[in-house]
Amino acid sequence: MITVALDAMGGDHAPRAEVEGAVLAAREYADVRILLVGIPEKVRPELDRLRHRDLPIEIVPATDVVTMTDSPSHAFRRKKDSSLHVAARLVRDGKADALVSAGNTGAVMTVARFVLGTLPSVDRPALAWAFPNIKEKVSIMLDVGANVDSKPLHMEQFAVMGEIYYRELWGTKRPRIALLSIGEEDVKGNELTKESAALLKQTSLNFVGNVEGRDVFRGNVDVIVCDGFIGNIALKLSEGLVEHIGGMLKKAIKSSLASQIGYALSKKAFGAFRKRTDYSEYGGAPLLGVRGVTIIGHGRSNANAVKNAIRVAAELCRSGMNEKIEQELSAAAAIPARG
Amino acid sequence: MITVALDAMGGDHAPRAEVEGAVLAAREYADVRILLVGIPEKVRPELDRLRHRDLPIEIVPATDVVTMTDSPSHAFRRKKDSSLHVAARLVRDGKADALVSAGNTGAVMTVARFVLGTLPSVDRPALAWAFPNIKEKVSIMLDVGANVDSKPLHMEQFAVMGEIYYRELWGTKRPRIALLSIGEEDVKGNELTKESAALLKQTSLNFVGNVEGRDVFRGNVDVIVCDGFIGNIALKLSEGLVEHIGGMLKKAIKSSLASQIGYALSKKAFGAFRKRTDYSEYGGAPLLGVRGVTIIGHGRSNANAVKNAIRVAAELCRSGMNEKIEQELSAAAAIPARG
Repeated sequence: MITVALDAMGGDHAPRAEVEGAVLAAREYADVRILLVGIPEKVRPELDRLRHRDLPIEIVPATDVVTMTDSPSHAFRRKKDSSLHVAARLVRDGKADALVSAGNTGAVMTVARFVLGTLPSVDRPALAWAFPNIKEKVSIMLDVGANVDSKPLHMEQFAVMGEIYYRELWGTKRPRIALLSIGEEDVKGNELTKESAALLKQTSLNFVGNVEGRDVFRGNVDVIVCDGFIGNIALKLSEGLVEHIGGMLKKAIKSSLASQIGYALSKKAFGAFRKRTDYSEYGGAPLLGVRGVTIIGHGRSNANAVKNAIRVAAELCRSGMNEKIEQELSAAAAIPARG
Repeated sequence: MITVALDAMGGDHAPRAEVEGAVLAAREYADVRILLVGIPEKVRPELDRLRHRDLPIEIVPATDVVTMTDSPSHAFRRKKDSSLHVAARLVRDGKADALVSAGNTGAVMTVARFVLGTLPSVDRPALAWAFPNIKEKVSIMLDVGANVDSKPLHMEQFAVMGEIYYRELWGTKRPRIALLSIGEEDVKGNELTKESAALLKQTSLNFVGNVEGRDVFRGNVDVIVCDGFIGNIALKLSEGLVEHIGGMLKKAIKSSLASQIGYALSKKAFGAFRKRTDYSEYGGAPLLGVRGVTIIGHGRSNANAVKNAIRVAAELCRSGMNEKIEQELSAAAAIPARG
């Protein structure tokens, strides 16, 4: 049995989306037990609306809530009784295997990092994001915002963690690892990518070199490694552009009757398109490198997104991902030549 | 009269698109004279296909061509008789006011930077890109790839150059300047953005603070300043995503007869949409900070894009942009408190 501590108060649609997602997940995944962490008076009525008597769902009380506008440090230091902290402590104390929250991303990262701690061989955790690509698969990018000003050694650790995550979740034996840069040639890039490339070449990873921004959607690599400053800008730029294009299309369609009829006829096609650009289908972003699996859902998560986040959390627990990360990184660190 | 030296051999569709673009521009802009720099046997027949007798267009011979696969250093050192070099020397020697090329971007930047040189108060030139935004205007981003590992002082110079460029081309008196970062609060960002923000606050610029990746398309700021590594990734990611979404839409539409009919009916709407995402409408990217105006067109430039690049080059010459940049930067450097 895998126990997931779900922050029932995180996310824009909490606790309703969280409770519904928990019920969906508990129904669908036979080996998953869910601890709904939150303010009982708010969580209980939501749960009671749904048929849940036979499901392995329990409410664990918390008295406070981290809001979307709380600074990470405020959330970490001043809200120790929040649902987020209580959920993280359940994982730390071995009462749950995974933490899932669609709350304030910065706060979840900070609380997970410092309440759970990092794995012994990991210097910095990394947030990994799945970008859908033109080959109808995903390429993951990490780090998308857990750290800034990363050093080459951190980039190497991101690559190892990303490889294992990709392998466990998408089943590819030797995922293709690349560095996000500004040209494919070795000489292109900044100091960080050049030094990181030199390090990555010495590993046993399937390192294929540099890729550019446009390759994120081409599906020619599986794992894209970058500093969290770059990754976060890439992620938010993509979200912004998808929104922007959606808005422009809507406007263009509204501009004439013919195109409105046209839109009505092609609605199904747009539905499929929207589903492929809907990041909630991909189940949230794991914060790799912390003790205990941590999945951060999008703030706008609906019940389906919460269910998917729980699914991913359970898969990563079953796969023993963290043991594998620790094993590979500690083995790598033992080779003195790589310094 | 403004004289533009056009690299007639640059770009994927050269020399045809270049020659056609030159003819379109010379017809439309009364004060523009164009020097078509290229291999005469290739350029002459293209020009003779078109009515040009009464237009101020001349062919200036070159014997070599920089290809899209030449490295910038190879192009700079080994191809001194290429159309790109000859065109740059025309500007250096005062025989032309502006250099326009849709060739190999890295090569154009290198040749422009070292043949023309930078303005006295500019340490590093910056490539500026116009992103269309949801308010049907553009936000410019710089640097999108002329430099990596920029220092705060370079970022300040980018801001000043971007401000003047935006003001001259879009007529806004006090463009809103922002730093591209990973959160709006001052404490968010990396070492470079934090130090750059501190510098920018001391200037007389209309500096509004940090913006995130999604703000690039929101139109709430006019000039977005970043290191060229970040900017280049942002630019290529956007291009890749637009292509990717276009591809997905096409696929979705092809999937049923109803949606094909729908598409036919809404074709005009899509045309408008495509035009707004077509970067060629915006006339290429200026390399700001070099002596003499330099405009780099997209490699895929068609005749219309070439014409627009010439239009922008002429506008920047008329406005005296470089004199203004030099004036503002040398005045800023004279204030000792700012170091």
